[in-house]
Amino acid sequence: MELHNQSDISCSSAAENYLIEKMNEIKIFSPATVANVACGFDVLGFCLDSVGDDMVIRKTDKKGIHITRIEGFNLPYEAELNVAGVSALAMYDAIDVDFGFEIEIYKNIKPGSGIGSSAASAVGSVFGMNELLNRPFSKTQLTEFAIKGEALASKCEHADNLAPALFGGFTLVKSISPLRILEIPSPDDLYATIIHPQIEIKTSESRAILPKEVPLSEAIEQWANLGSLVHALHTSDYDLISNSLTDVIVEPHRGKLIPEFNAVKTAALKAGALGAGISGSGPSIFSLSKSSETAIKVKDAMESIYSKTGIAFEIHVSKINTNGVKIIN
Amino acid sequence: MELHNQSDISCSSAAENYLIEKMNEIKIFSPATVANVACGFDVLGFCLDSVGDDMVIRKTDKKGIHITRIEGFNLPYEAELNVAGVSALAMYDAIDVDFGFEIEIYKNIKPGSGIGSSAASAVGSVFGMNELLNRPFSKTQLTEFAIKGEALASKCEHADNLAPALFGGFTLVKSISPLRILEIPSPDDLYATIIHPQIEIKTSESRAILPKEVPLSEAIEQWANLGSLVHALHTSDYDLISNSLTDVIVEPHRGKLIPEFNAVKTAALKAGALGAGISGSGPSIFSLSKSSETAIKVKDAMESIYSKTGIAFEIHVSKINTNGVKIIN
Repeated sequence: MELHNQSDISCSSAAENYLIEKMNEIKIFSPATVANVACGFDVLGFCLDSVGDDMVIRKTDKKGIHITRIEGFNLPYEAELNVAGVSALAMYDAIDVDFGFEIEIYKNIKPGSGIGSSAASAVGSVFGMNELLNRPFSKTQLTEFAIKGEALASKCEHADNLAPALFGGFTLVKSISPLRILEIPSPDDLYATIIHPQIEIKTSESRAILPKEVPLSEAIEQWANLGSLVHALHTSDYDLISNSLTDVIVEPHRGKLIPEFNAVKTAALKAGALGAGISGSGPSIFSLSKSSETAIKVKDAMESIYSKTGIAFEIHVSKINTNGVKIIN
Repeated sequence: MELHNQSDISCSSAAENYLIEKMNEIKIFSPATVANVACGFDVLGFCLDSVGDDMVIRKTDKKGIHITRIEGFNLPYEAELNVAGVSALAMYDAIDVDFGFEIEIYKNIKPGSGIGSSAASAVGSVFGMNELLNRPFSKTQLTEFAIKGEALASKCEHADNLAPALFGGFTLVKSISPLRILEIPSPDDLYATIIHPQIEIKTSESRAILPKEVPLSEAIEQWANLGSLVHALHTSDYDLISNSLTDVIVEPHRGKLIPEFNAVKTAALKAGALGAGISGSGPSIFSLSKSSETAIKVKDAMESIYSKTGIAFEIHVSKINTNGVKIIN
């Protein structure tokens, strides 16, 4: 596991540290996230502000990890079968304490929505425990624990939702082994609009539909776009962000699994969005806009398409959340 | 053709402009360049400082483009058969003047070396003409003309050597049509070492050896590395530059065409290089180092491998040239 680096340590005042040391319980907000982000399949993600789970983490005399309350969705209480429990257990195994932790989960992000539901659970428990322990672990180390929880949900170790949930903003997961997460700057006026159709896409189907091999020419186009997007985020070049948000590899396959995907994307662009694409492996569709006003127009445009389908949906407008998971009162 | 943008206009003082207007002849240095740069196949390039061609461009009463002198290598004098001539003709067709231009080429970069020999020729003529005309064209527009010359040499329109030769530093060619060139920052202490074995690799062979399709997993690794390299260049993170300089797509194929490629790369890394790879389509091998001292150690290490082969070679150490093609006295 890598050592802390400067940007990888949670910042807090001495007064806050004192309060946390005295506390036995904290409430946290663990945000939803968008992975892949068009050209960044499997490596890029960003963090949302207005959508996420609440969790309470509590120190207890009873040793071990105990999930004591779950609201919102029907999920297992056994720690080793629950995403938040598995990541908590991975961290608990790495410390030597004479107490345990209770976890309460108030789940708002529907599992399987494509906006990082399992990542929010996996991140929330280890972030909260780390706070109550006075932060012995870096965010990268917390990601290592959370990967174990994420793997329970998605059957493979990946961090493209975990990283933005923990670090906030845009993140690029350069590699999993060793785990290397890069924090890419987020321009100030960037807003996301996300529509979540209430349909289920089986993970097995969204994986099986991807080709094992891709044309070299398309791979080149994809990495030109990803390199450009990273440059555009560094330089707050909204026009270039717009030009780079193209996915020639995955979207042509997975887009077919989402009803009205092309119509929603076209409507979002027409309403002024910089770009749009599949959030994670779907069914959610994300778009990015410059300004909240445009993001709201995009929401209206997406709604007008989906309200004709008869499929239930949720829709969110969110500033890019540059902080990630956080303590709430 | 896109309009000028702020960073895309040559800077010069009023006094310089006055001098250039009065001049009928200038001498320019057109630099060698390294394309691909490991993970950036077909899109990334950087500019060298210590290697390049000299050219003289002269206004003449006789209309048209006339190549009047070529030294160094045996190249055609007919403008329409010469790379520098073809790009000059493309620009000449776009202007309406009652005079012509003479071009003298003092070629130092061997054609087929893999360090942008044709790009230096293609760039030099249009850069020099633009200076004598008091800069009516942006660097992006000059690249459009130079692409025509480059296409004569390489049988396809590409700009991954032209862009760094014109703009200097690191460039990312996001797309050819429309032409979109991004200027990526260069950390101050970055130095290149380039070894050029005096062998010929046929372009047809180096193209034919590339697969038409690549595994999606390898494409993902490549774009993770390219995204990371762009981030590393923006943040002057030498450790991350080192970690990102990996080519899992092209090098495994083309490396085989270059004698002692793996030995040279290993020796460069052992001597402290951040990374190494094939320059362009070879046979030159580039490496990047932090500090000129390390770049010189890398040169010694490369030399010691190649001096045992019996193959003649040239070797260069160069700071990254952040200015690109320039007027010399």
